[in-house]
Order: sequence, then structure tokens, then C-alpha cells
Amino acid sequence: MNGAQSLIRTLVDAGVEVCFSNPGTSEMHFVAALDSVPEMRGVLGLFEGAVTGAADGYARMAGRPAATLLHLGPGLGNGLANLHNARRAHTPIVNIVGDHATYHKKYDAPLESDIDAIASSLEGWVRRSEHTKDVGADAAAAVAAAQDAPGRIATLILPADASWGEGGETCTPIPPRAPQSVDATTVKKIAEVLRSGESVALLIGGAACREPGLLATSRIAAVTGVKAFAETFPARLERGAGLPSIDRLGYLAEQVAYQLDGVKHVIVAGTKPPVSFFAYPSKPSDLVPEGAQVHVLAEVGQDATGALNDVAALVAPDTAPVLQEASRPALPSGPLTAQNWADVIGALLPERAIIADEANTSGLLIPAATAGAPRHDVLTLTGGAIGYGIPVATGAAVAAPDRPVVNLQSDGSALYTISALWTQARENLNVTTVILNNHAYAILRIELQRVGAAPDGPKANDLLDLSRPDMDFAKIAEGLGVPATRATTADELAEQFARALAEPGPHLIDAAVPSLI
Amino acid sequence: MNGAQSLIRTLVDAGVEVCFSNPGTSEMHFVAALDSVPEMRGVLGLFEGAVTGAADGYARMAGRPAATLLHLGPGLGNGLANLHNARRAHTPIVNIVGDHATYHKKYDAPLESDIDAIASSLEGWVRRSEHTKDVGADAAAAVAAAQDAPGRIATLILPADASWGEGGETCTPIPPRAPQSVDATTVKKIAEVLRSGESVALLIGGAACREPGLLATSRIAAVTGVKAFAETFPARLERGAGLPSIDRLGYLAEQVAYQLDGVKHVIVAGTKPPVSFFAYPSKPSDLVPEGAQVHVLAEVGQDATGALNDVAALVAPDTAPVLQEASRPALPSGPLTAQNWADVIGALLPERAIIADEANTSGLLIPAATAGAPRHDVLTLTGGAIGYGIPVATGAAVAAPDRPVVNLQSDGSALYTISALWTQARENLNVTTVILNNHAYAILRIELQRVGAAPDGPKANDLLDLSRPDMDFAKIAEGLGVPATRATTADELAEQFARALAEPGPHLIDAAVPSLI
Repeated sequence: MNGAQSLIRTLVDAGVEVCFSNPGTSEMHFVAALDSVPEMRGVLGLFEGAVTGAADGYARMAGRPAATLLHLGPGLGNGLANLHNARRAHTPIVNIVGDHATYHKKYDAPLESDIDAIASSLEGWVRRSEHTKDVGADAAAAVAAAQDAPGRIATLILPADASWGEGGETCTPIPPRAPQSVDATTVKKIAEVLRSGESVALLIGGAACREPGLLATSRIAAVTGVKAFAETFPARLERGAGLPSIDRLGYLAEQVAYQLDGVKHVIVAGTKPPVSFFAYPSKPSDLVPEGAQVHVLAEVGQDATGALNDVAALVAPDTAPVLQEASRPALPSGPLTAQNWADVIGALLPERAIIADEANTSGLLIPAATAGAPRHDVLTLTGGAIGYGIPVATGAAVAAPDRPVVNLQSDGSALYTISALWTQARENLNVTTVILNNHAYAILRIELQRVGAAPDGPKANDLLDLSRPDMDFAKIAEGLGVPATRATTADELAEQFARALAEPGPHLIDAAVPSLI
Repeated sequence: MNGAQSLIRTLVDAGVEVCFSNPGTSEMHFVAALDSVPEMRGVLGLFEGAVTGAADGYARMAGRPAATLLHLGPGLGNGLANLHNARRAHTPIVNIVGDHATYHKKYDAPLESDIDAIASSLEGWVRRSEHTKDVGADAAAAVAAAQDAPGRIATLILPADASWGEGGETCTPIPPRAPQSVDATTVKKIAEVLRSGESVALLIGGAACREPGLLATSRIAAVTGVKAFAETFPARLERGAGLPSIDRLGYLAEQVAYQLDGVKHVIVAGTKPPVSFFAYPSKPSDLVPEGAQVHVLAEVGQDATGALNDVAALVAPDTAPVLQEASRPALPSGPLTAQNWADVIGALLPERAIIADEANTSGLLIPAATAGAPRHDVLTLTGGAIGYGIPVATGAAVAAPDRPVVNLQSDGSALYTISALWTQARENLNVTTVILNNHAYAILRIELQRVGAAPDGPKANDLLDLSRPDMDFAKIAEGLGVPATRATTADELAEQFARALAEPGPHLIDAAVPSLI
């Protein structure tokens, strides 16, 4: 057994059964070894950002890590932006980064680079597996490290000779560290804050954004009147009819100020106190209202859901959660607007959908339009590195082949990782991509105003404009093997969206949704 | 004057007049400041790999750096692969990487990441400009550092508050370090090696691959019989009728063994002794023939061209260089083959063309087919990080608007940075892209055999196959605003190539060139 075979066998034994791959020469023995371990599925991406984003989407839905296969430093570099998003989502991922053979590194061949420095920027787990006999053990350690609560990026650097050498040994799985429980004293203290009679906000994040956490949060809110919010960008938020509807904290500081107006206490569970996404001249970075006190129920990595249940048992033992009733917008008609496209999605969102949401400015009205839709999951842009939507939708569809995936995708963010559409076609994944094509970096038009960087002259505006030339996403998609249509009215969008959902395999709709500004 | 204005003014004063940009919120003051410095041209890319590759192509042709504008760590990460290639090309580039405001960093907002670690992997010059009044001086230092011989990546990290703060001061340009001259003793020693009567190879690289270096090399070879080669992947190689024709060292170790067979001395000038691109089991990494001695005429960063001229003055004072005669292949006919597509390019390559060569396996016969074509420049994949061709062609066309740019582009490498086609359309650049569409990572099929990673099973082969689904590059190009055609015969390719060159603006030809293996 060579090193690559011991690696893949160990990964599979530890529950890692998909490897999103963009290999090169130094990974050829890994590629060859795939055929010796039938349980491992190799999924090809044509760009590493598609690969790492897919691994993120996969683990958010599967609840266990995928592996990635990347080619040296440049491959890891290309994958870095979506690994950044995955880091912020606390998604477990096991990167296998091929490197030159150990004895070859001293020659400083063209592809030699400082992989360790690049990997270190992810602030996760990094190890270089230099000896064939250790590769299995290092792989088991990587899978455990990736899954240690709350989840992180584990990067195993695999020199070619460690991969091709004989004498590989598989390693039994290492159990990852479970989330730490919150002690009873903290739970009691939080219960006291909730009973203080003062205005309190409760901000939940991480795994608490799934059903059990939402139910506990709703019970607490029902009895105490606390203002409950999900963090601005949850990795996975469960929503829809039959679940408590917990609003997300806004992206703009102005929204958050409105949401937290008058609050004297901010309780956080599984997330951090709110901060501004960016700094703005003369505006605060810390979004906790002045004079309000922060209380930590559960740190990131602690069992926030258990803690919320413990608090609910104290303050709301006999209170039922408030569940969202089923309700959908009426199907609209007429030319597409920033409002009516969201209503189309709300009206037609299928049962058990997974929404990969990178609609950005165009998606402002989506939460309201889909609140009463059938139960669904929303995956969001946790790290702010755009180009996440198409790959994450791809990975989510690999993880949940029986569920429809809907990717709401702004045009400005689509080109970073557009090639993931090809992987959707290759794997025949049930992903419907709706491109919100407003021909602009609309978010930046807003931000140019917000940072006070006036006057905005012609050159500045030109750098935020995507209309010269207009992109034809239907053609791009078809070129990548994904059937595509174009919608300019709500009626067309509805008809095309329904049809795309009804047919197996990927589809793309280029929707001419005008910009909000 | 704010920091951003002082930065752009200082860049322009130092000769940096193009900024390839993919900005975000933290760069909005830089974007706004573009309108206050008319000499700076902002060129928008839709993905950072397109931006950094364009900066590489620009500087290779312009001989001076462009700036890039990148959005925090993920933006730099996305740009890293083509910065790696630029580093290997010794291309001067000035990265401006926006960061959060200094006081905002402690909040660990979603886009916070370790930019310094990522930048450090480029082994160039990195500085964080924390105070508005220093931004101008830091920019001047960055431009000088980028241009210090032999050229490198300079990365200036610009916190948003340093950018928007008032009190910016422009700084006068700092002269960069010129290449160091080679001393007379070394020149004499090399002349003795050349006169030894033993078999000698002379390997030139860097700036020595341009006309003056080639002329000196040819004179030396003409009188001494030395086997002269250009390095395998030169940043910019001048070729064609009227110039000495100096073969490049091969990519495969087997080719190099053939080229250097029997050689007892290897002289290097402006490059390093040859090493294998990758390691292969039981094959040497060091490609200097066993027992041969290495002699350094000029280290990388020294004045190799001057040194070659000094050697020529000693050993070949009255010898003229041997110049390539004009000669072109006949225009071929019939279905496209690995041979005849190269003949089409050789037959029709226009005067003063710039070839951005990422043809990989499909391009094996291009050097022979174009050797006697009109004088042209060839830009090559210096660092081995694929996805370089389309962006480098884009940047070269910005630098040399009066010259035709021809991008020979393999399909497997095209998807990494495909969005650079949009920038070509936006800027109406004279780039003709020929996609060599063989529906495979053909190089990896070769490498899978070469590394001895047999047996190659169905899963392994599937990861090297791009035919499921086939990509339609003509549709993709049209979707990005570039007119495109499809060629399946040499006649069609010739007709479409000639037409694309005759019309202004970008064009793409999807050429169905079968794989060599």
C-alpha cells in the first residue's frame, strides 16, 4: 500500500467520502489511488475556488467534512477565498495539498512556493506529512482536527514521495472533540438577565441556527419578550413554515442600530457580539448599543443549543415555541423588479429546498418573501469573499442529492467561480441558479456613498459598472453544459423557475432584475 | 489630499500608470481618488487572478510595473497563482491590498484575515502603510522595490483609514537598483571554459532572452560551437526572422537529457542550472548531466546581457551573429491536427505579434512552426500555475495597443481566469485567443504515465477528462462579450485567424485540435 492509498483509505474510514479535486502532476498518485478505494468519490472542479467552495457547501449540509485535492501553493491560493468563507462558517474541510517530493524542494523548481505560509493564514490545522508510514495517521488527525468543535480547515501537505512511497499504514478514526457544555452558573446568570425587566437582545449563531436551537430561542422569546436574532451570516439557517422565524441581524450598521434600539443587554449564544462588516469614517465598528452590556451564554465552539435549552427549561418550562405559519406571496406579473422576483421565489420554493444565497443587494426582500414557504435551509456568505454561491450550491447538491438546491446569485459575484456550473453539469446535480443580473457591483455603489468617498467621478463609477459589455449568463452557462434561459418578466421567471425545478440536473436562469439603486 | 490621492499621485509620478482593479468596500476611497489623478488608468477585472495576470503581462511588455487593486486577504488569495507566475518571471508588480481600518481590525470582522502571511509567501517586498502621511513614501518605496533588479512583487497593504485620512503627502520617485555588472575575472574564466575544447552548453535567461542577449549568445555560439539554449520558460523571448534562433530547453527531463547529451560544462547567464519541473520516482531532479561542471556567468539579477557581450568581445570579436531567415510553413488544409494548427499560426503570424503561450501539450510544434515568422515576442508560463494565458494576453495588449496579441490557450487551463475575456471586450483590446480544445487535461494524462502511477483506472482517468460535458468556448466567449467562432479544419482556422487579426478588438477561436495522446 502506498501513501496515497493509505491516505484515501483512512479518510473513508473516518467518514470522508467525497474529494473535490483539481489535481496536477504532484497529485497523480493520489488520483491513481482513487480506483483502489471504491468508497471515495472524486468530483472534478476546473478551478480550485470551485473545489473549496463545494467542500464548504457539502459539509454544511452533510455535517461531515469533504476532502479537497489541490496542486501546490498556487492551487491552495486559488482556493483560499472560499476557504476563508468556510473558516468563518466553521465548516470542517480536509485539504490535501500536493507538494514536490521532499528531496526535490531544494531545487526551487518553478512551482515551488511557501505552502505553509499560505495555509497558516487560515488559522486552522496544518501538517506536512513527510514520511509515507505517517500519512495515514496524519490523515486521521486532520479529519479529527477539522471536526473538533466548532469546526475548522485542516490542511495536510503531501509531498509526492510520501504519496508514492510504499509502506503506507491506514489509521483508525480519531473521535473529534464535541462542543463543550455550558455550566449551570452561566445558564442561571443568563436567566437572571432575561428576567431583569430591561430590554434584552439574544443573538444566536452556529449550530443554534438549526431547529433545536430555534425552538429553544423561540420559547425563551415567547415568555421573556427578548428580541431574538440569528447572526447576520449563518452557515446554515433553518427556516420556513413550522419552524420559529428568527430574523437575521442586518448587514448595514444602520439596520442593526434599528434592530437593537433601546437594548440594555446583548446575550450571545454560539456567536460573537455584533460588529460592523466594514469600518466607515465617523461610524462605530462595535454595534452593541452604547451602554448595553454583553453576556456570553455560549462561546463559539461551546454547545449553544444545549445552553439555550437549559435556559428555556429555567425561564420557559411550559412555554411552546411560536411557529411560522405556511404562507406564500401571490405569483406576481409584469416586468421584473427588486420586489417581484423575490415573490416568485417565495411563491414557488419547493419542499426541503436548500438556498445558497449570494443575492447580495438584490436579495434584500428574499427573507420576507420566503418566511412562510415550506421548510428550507439557507446557506449564507459567512466570510464576505464573493464567488461563493455557485460552488457552495454544487457541494450542497452533492451532499443532499434528494433535495432541490436554489442558488440566488448576483451577477457581480458570479464570475469568480463560474466554472462550478460545469461540475454541476458533469455530476448532473439538481441546482437551479437564478442570476440577478443588474449589470453592476451594486453593493459597491452603495458603499461608495456610505464611506463618504464623494465625489464619485466617471472613472470611479466605471469600476463599479458591469454593463460594458453586458454579460450573457445564459450563453456562458450553455457553454459550460448547463441548460439556461432568460427572464425579463415575473411571469417568465415563474414559468422557468418551475420548469427548472421539475427537471433533473442543473439549470440557470438569467434574470434581468433591476438594481435597487 | 487624502491617503489614496497621495498614493495614486506618487504611483503615477514613478511611472505606474495602469491599475488593474477588483475593488471592494475597503478600497472605495482609492476608487474615488482615481478621478483626481487623470494619468492613472483603472482597468476592471471580474476576478483577481485576471487582475494579477494582466499586471504580469503588462509589465513584461511595458518594462515597468502596473499596480493591482485587491480586496483584503481573499482578494490577494484569488490573485496569488498569477502572482506566483509573475514572481518566477521577475515581473515588477505593485499590489495595493486594501485592509480594514486600523482600529477595526481588533473586531475580527468577517473579512479579517492574515494578509501579511499570504503576502509573505510571494517572497518579495511587503509593507503595511498605517499612517496617511506615510502612504506616499511607502508607495514610492514599493515601486522601487518592485523594480530593483531582477524585479519582484511589492505588496502595499493599505488600511481603509490610512486611505481616507487627510494629510497625504506625495513622494518623489526612488530610483530602483540596476542589475549588477559581472566582473572581468568571471568573464575571462567563462571565456576559458568556452575555449576548453570540451562540450559546453550555454543557458541564458531573464533579460538576456531579448535581442541584445540573443545577438551576443549567437556570436559566442558561432565561434565556439557552444550549444546555446534559452531557459525553459522565459518571461519574454524575442524570436523570428532577423533574430538569432535560440532553442528553449525542453520541459521534459528526457528532452533536456537529449539536448545536453555529452555536455561537460554548463554556463548559466541570468538563470539557474536546469532542474526537473516535477520529481519523478527514480529519475533525477538535477538536469545538469552527471559529471558536468556548472559555471555562473551571471546570477539572476546581474546584468547577463552585458556579461554575454563582454564574453563575445573576448571570444568572438569579429564574428557576426547567425540570424534566422524568413520562412513560413505553407498554409495547410484538412481536419485540424496537432501539427497543422501550428502551421496555420506560423503561416499567418502577423508582424510584431506578442504570443501569450499557454498551449501546453498542444503547443509542442509551435516553436518550429513560428521560428521563421516575422519578429515577435513569446511570453511563457514561468511559474507553472495554469490560468495565466488569458490575463497575461490582456495585460500585454494594454501595454502594447499597437501590436497584435495572440493567446494560444489550452482548454484545461482556460477556465481558471476565463473572465479576463470580459476585460478584453471592455477595453477593446487586440487579442486573438485560440483555444486548443482537446477536451482533456492532456498534460496530466502524460504525467500519470510518467510518474509511474499505473494502473490508471476509470476514476483516475475521469479526473483528467474534460469531455463530460464538452465545453463550448465560443458560447462562453460570446457570453463575456467577445466575438467567437469555431474551427474544425485548418482551412477554417486560417480563415478565422486572419479575419480576427484584421478586425480591431478581441476575438476567440474554439479550435478542435485533437490531443497528442
